[in-house]
Amino acid sequence: MSDSLSSDLTLLRQRMRHSASHVMAGAVLELFPEAKLGIGPPTEDGFYYDFLVSRPFTPEDLQAIEERMRKAVGLSLPFQRRVLSRGEAGEQFADQPFKLEILRDIPPEEPITTYRHGSFEDLCEGPHVATTANIAAFKLLSVAGAYWRGDERKPMLQRVYGTAFEAQEALDGYLHKLEEAKRRDHRLLGRELGLFLMDPVAPASPFFLPKGATVYNLLIQYVRELYTRYGYQEVITPQVFASELWKRSGHYENYRDLMFFTYADDREYGIKPMNCPGHALLYASQVRSYRELPVRFADFGRLHRFERSGVLHGLTRVRSFSQDDAHIFCTPAQIHQETRRFIEMLQETYKLFGFQQVRMALSLRPEKRMGSDDVWDRAEAALRSVLDEAGLPYEPKPGEGAFYGPKVDFFVPDALDREWQLGTIQLDFSLPERFDLEYVAEDGSRQRPVVLHRAMLGSLDRFLGVLIEHYGGAFPAWLAPVQAVIIPIADRHVTYARTVEARLKAEGLRVQVDDGQDRMNAKIRQAQLQKVPFMLVIGDREAASQGVAVRLRSGESPGTMPLAEATALVLRAAASRV
Amino acid sequence: MSDSLSSDLTLLRQRMRHSASHVMAGAVLELFPEAKLGIGPPTEDGFYYDFLVSRPFTPEDLQAIEERMRKAVGLSLPFQRRVLSRGEAGEQFADQPFKLEILRDIPPEEPITTYRHGSFEDLCEGPHVATTANIAAFKLLSVAGAYWRGDERKPMLQRVYGTAFEAQEALDGYLHKLEEAKRRDHRLLGRELGLFLMDPVAPASPFFLPKGATVYNLLIQYVRELYTRYGYQEVITPQVFASELWKRSGHYENYRDLMFFTYADDREYGIKPMNCPGHALLYASQVRSYRELPVRFADFGRLHRFERSGVLHGLTRVRSFSQDDAHIFCTPAQIHQETRRFIEMLQETYKLFGFQQVRMALSLRPEKRMGSDDVWDRAEAALRSVLDEAGLPYEPKPGEGAFYGPKVDFFVPDALDREWQLGTIQLDFSLPERFDLEYVAEDGSRQRPVVLHRAMLGSLDRFLGVLIEHYGGAFPAWLAPVQAVIIPIADRHVTYARTVEARLKAEGLRVQVDDGQDRMNAKIRQAQLQKVPFMLVIGDREAASQGVAVRLRSGESPGTMPLAEATALVLRAAASRV
Repeated sequence: MSDSLSSDLTLLRQRMRHSASHVMAGAVLELFPEAKLGIGPPTEDGFYYDFLVSRPFTPEDLQAIEERMRKAVGLSLPFQRRVLSRGEAGEQFADQPFKLEILRDIPPEEPITTYRHGSFEDLCEGPHVATTANIAAFKLLSVAGAYWRGDERKPMLQRVYGTAFEAQEALDGYLHKLEEAKRRDHRLLGRELGLFLMDPVAPASPFFLPKGATVYNLLIQYVRELYTRYGYQEVITPQVFASELWKRSGHYENYRDLMFFTYADDREYGIKPMNCPGHALLYASQVRSYRELPVRFADFGRLHRFERSGVLHGLTRVRSFSQDDAHIFCTPAQIHQETRRFIEMLQETYKLFGFQQVRMALSLRPEKRMGSDDVWDRAEAALRSVLDEAGLPYEPKPGEGAFYGPKVDFFVPDALDREWQLGTIQLDFSLPERFDLEYVAEDGSRQRPVVLHRAMLGSLDRFLGVLIEHYGGAFPAWLAPVQAVIIPIADRHVTYARTVEARLKAEGLRVQVDDGQDRMNAKIRQAQLQKVPFMLVIGDREAASQGVAVRLRSGESPGTMPLAEATALVLRAAASRV
Repeated sequence: MSDSLSSDLTLLRQRMRHSASHVMAGAVLELFPEAKLGIGPPTEDGFYYDFLVSRPFTPEDLQAIEERMRKAVGLSLPFQRRVLSRGEAGEQFADQPFKLEILRDIPPEEPITTYRHGSFEDLCEGPHVATTANIAAFKLLSVAGAYWRGDERKPMLQRVYGTAFEAQEALDGYLHKLEEAKRRDHRLLGRELGLFLMDPVAPASPFFLPKGATVYNLLIQYVRELYTRYGYQEVITPQVFASELWKRSGHYENYRDLMFFTYADDREYGIKPMNCPGHALLYASQVRSYRELPVRFADFGRLHRFERSGVLHGLTRVRSFSQDDAHIFCTPAQIHQETRRFIEMLQETYKLFGFQQVRMALSLRPEKRMGSDDVWDRAEAALRSVLDEAGLPYEPKPGEGAFYGPKVDFFVPDALDREWQLGTIQLDFSLPERFDLEYVAEDGSRQRPVVLHRAMLGSLDRFLGVLIEHYGGAFPAWLAPVQAVIIPIADRHVTYARTVEARLKAEGLRVQVDDGQDRMNAKIRQAQLQKVPFMLVIGDREAASQGVAVRLRSGESPGTMPLAEATALVLRAAASRV
């Protein structure tokens, strides 16, 4: 779809959804004449309208409202705009106190307009579709409480959510995705699959259960393998630093509200929200020659940031997390090559996880910045030329760079087409100044290195949340916490099942024997619910022939085969990492 | 050596060292007649005496004192005991204010005794050797400041340290060990070998440099392999918990002074000093059947404890560390088997690191305790029978168990025969009560599990410090941060050296090319100083024949061999883990 078509569609949907919210308000007033109306705007995915009514809406109410709406749509009622004087408007909305409040807030020089369809007239700037018949496909979705004007000291209204699309198929597609997103909610799957849990004594700090910890550690292991290939050096740095350090790094001035502090020996200490200052100390702990550069320090250290309770959401917004964090200390001339290598590593990684469509945003110099124009010119040119070479589309964002340097952010859509920001690479001219970092150049002079902050996956905790939803919990074999469940049909098959287990474990595979009392089909269903990639079923025939009957999570049944063959099958799947 | 002989020797050394301290004090008074004497006891490894003199002792002073002492020893002066009245003693020590202070503190019913050799007489309870000639071999070692009576408000005296042995060889052996211990000091080696560093902005919190982090992660990887074999499940738990949790666990009452606290959302949070309460929450997060038990949760989470600055010492006493920590939740009947398996794992591990002589201490019920006598009987009997079965000597320590259960501590001597406590296994009847932990027994009833706290290596940071000293920095090939250095003799050999590097890296080995401008011998020396196990030297002959000349850290030279053979040699050494 071309950009202009896509933006036409966006505008059409906005109008249609706005009109649907009017139609909904009209229907509510027919059913609840005493209802007081709040506001009813379109949103990115649909629309809502806020109502003050004497009792909570029930699912049956929503159905009745939807039916009334269908009738109004069937009547092809035109939307008619009207300009009113303030006096007329005050009369018109005399029994709608929230509307009167809005009215009072409209500046005197602005016109007062309403839109009417049928007998319902609403204070509104528009625009709307021509008639109610233009609302091609719609559905009411849910109700939730919402304070008037978002202010908890004001009355709580009921917000009814709905959505509308230009065609039934588009609506169906959206509803399916919504259903799928609910089914894949990582908070739900996290519990069902025994991956992680939360507890109020540690707000927004996940507990990874054995299976979740397995996946977490596999992600770290994967990144470590990349680090070996791409020349990174892992370090382990403290978590608690005296505030002097945070003052020097600028975090105390700019980031303090998001930090946790503690006290000892009459000194204030900050728990690290980032690894950079620690890495700057490591860099500065010895004289560095240009021949050593680039120095690439990687650190899986746990970070703590005080996110407000309101914005917390499962694993995707937490207070305690580790990152695949690294800092590259290099010469300005090395920015190009280091960024290129980073993007190579990142593309290799995203592809592995099935994130094919990487979108990039290049944030350029802001007005308030440090570093000379010459340095910015070269840094921005280096980033641009790397992105151009990579042949990937990117959006320049003038003025959006940090004061300390330009950056590239990387976004990917998951299996449900929801976009996540994962990676980032940020040039930093400030940190080397603040920590007086140097290297001895070829001519013996002392020079400032540049620092590149970079992460591919970002917070591993959040990335695991994204992955759970992306895979719907069905991790590929290399990441699956349990790669195969061995299912003895009867008690007499358990001994051989243990042999199979030992054999697979000896190959380094993660396997379990289900020796419970359930029947085979229940055991298979259980393994499928747990999204285990391979099921190895053992009955008389398999035990006698030293084989196993292989079934896949997908429902396929490759059938009975010798144990060696089945082992090779699982090993191949795990090694291929797809 | 039998126990009684060993204890005879201990008593002899104590007497001899005590006598040597008198001889030293006599010599000091001859040289510094105005000196005021403090005390001069024997210690575990030698003796000291405290003096107040007008200027600090120099190394030359120590030499002169030692010479005077030799003269006194040569004269075979007898040690003579004398009983004095308080009046006589007051007169005798009239110009020794510290002695007068001691005199005043002697209870009236106790006799006042002195020991005299030659013209020197000291207030002293004894016992001493017969004559100065019995001080067979001695040496003065060092001087340090020491407050009178350890009280910083009192005068600072000079403490002269020395030691004495029954034979010159024993003294030489001791001095050699002392020298070796200094050479192996992990703080020194940590810096020299690029393993770790400390910085005052993070007191007692090590920064592990790339090489140190490599060893650290290899230790974790080794423990993880054991965990797979021994049926442990790794989990990842938060670091910051609301104080409610610490109140529930009892840490808030008993351990608060050693904890760091922080504040958010008007709530107090404690940074975890231990993993146990978090693991109790994990255990309690689902209904547990007897069939699941034992549940073994392992956690490498970083812990923080506020150790006072005074007791900090390199890696061996830090504020921030990870442990090879695990908690076993089991039925009382499983205590025996779980302890046995733990000791098996521990012995396997200690043997690997060359700690052959494990000493064990079994701490038994204290007066103040929780849990019925019946439970204690069974728990202690279980531990005893496991230790008896293991056939290892252990020392029962009646009354020294924690109030929550009995425990076994494990001690090992390192390469210099210094003893370290590493492992521990502690039974806990309290935690399951506090967290109301249960399992469903075979008869459907709800029962309390027991918790076993256990660690083999203890703090990994501290263990790494112990290992550095134990190996003198020369880690075995499997743990060495760099396993082989490839040394091209001239620039024309660098290309082939890179091929060799790639080949070894592809095998998962940790290697470096020394392509600097130093001569071959300097490069070899450098690699030896860095304690790299293998050096692969490449000259014309090796490059032409696709071979390498192998040299070992020990100085041995297995000589030139084909690259495949050398690779196999390094791989074998790494795989053998010795």
